[in-house]
Amino acid sequence: MKKDNSAIKTKAFQDYTPEQFANCYICGWANEKGLKLKTYWKDDRSYETISLFKPLPEHTAIPGVVNGGILASIIDCHCINTAMAYGYRKEGREMNTEPSIKCMTGSMKIDYLKITPIDHTIEIRGRVKEVNGRKIIVHAEVIADGIITVRGEVVAVEIYKSPKF
Amino acid sequence: MKKDNSAIKTKAFQDYTPEQFANCYICGWANEKGLKLKTYWKDDRSYETISLFKPLPEHTAIPGVVNGGILASIIDCHCINTAMAYGYRKEGREMNTEPSIKCMTGSMKIDYLKITPIDHTIEIRGRVKEVNGRKIIVHAEVIADGIITVRGEVVAVEIYKSPKF
Repeated sequence: MKKDNSAIKTKAFQDYTPEQFANCYICGWANEKGLKLKTYWKDDRSYETISLFKPLPEHTAIPGVVNGGILASIIDCHCINTAMAYGYRKEGREMNTEPSIKCMTGSMKIDYLKITPIDHTIEIRGRVKEVNGRKIIVHAEVIADGIITVRGEVVAVEIYKSPKF
Repeated sequence: MKKDNSAIKTKAFQDYTPEQFANCYICGWANEKGLKLKTYWKDDRSYETISLFKPLPEHTAIPGVVNGGILASIIDCHCINTAMAYGYRKEGREMNTEPSIKCMTGSMKIDYLKITPIDHTIEIRGRVKEVNGRKIIVHAEVIADGIITVRGEVVAVEIYKSPKF
């Protein structure tokens, strides 16, 4: 089994975000009331990513089940961060290097396959599936207790690559 | 201009939810930390609906802009509540009558057309577009400061109609 690159895995993609843009409710490290999702490369070569997320008690749909909107939100941020990290990795550079790359969500499609139990830490796995000009299409799965419960596809749009972000 | 039915408009769809199922993070009246979205018929005849939502300061994407996951969550609950209310209205009965009707989200597609400014109360408009067996397809738009910023389509699935919910 290939050894992971611990230097990459210990710093999440979101940790590279400058403070003035780190207020995303789902994944910004500077949003005190936010969910602080953190996303990592699965290994040191692929374009596959992992986030872990423990739903809070209030994140319910019906009793015992995670809210579908929260799951969509987690998939959205997981995929956008995957798309931005892809932009750096394909160029063989770290996320704190210039020019900085920023993406936003153009569209997303979420398929709810099964209920997602709220008493587990859930895993979100993403992978870059296709790149078409400024569009980076990322697929994601939510896994709870070993079962894929939700699938998502996010079309991320690279809005700019700037030397002075 | 047709006069609205104030008896219907003053009680939101979500207000009919029994307490044990009113914990949805987005629209449950019994979730103390939830967003408490409320959805109403646009008038007393159509299958068109309205919700209003004032984003909280923490619901950011980047500064000044509403988080896309929150918008997807609001659209999801708006459409599911529209689908359930449709089930009652087509049978000409109130939502507190038996048999009760429950729907869950099978899938949703969200298109982000423009950024949604965080300093406005946003309006969500929904309408039942198609019914195919147990599937009720609801379209929705988010309107901020008079501009449509997001469009969504939710496939709601009627999971059961029970005399003893």
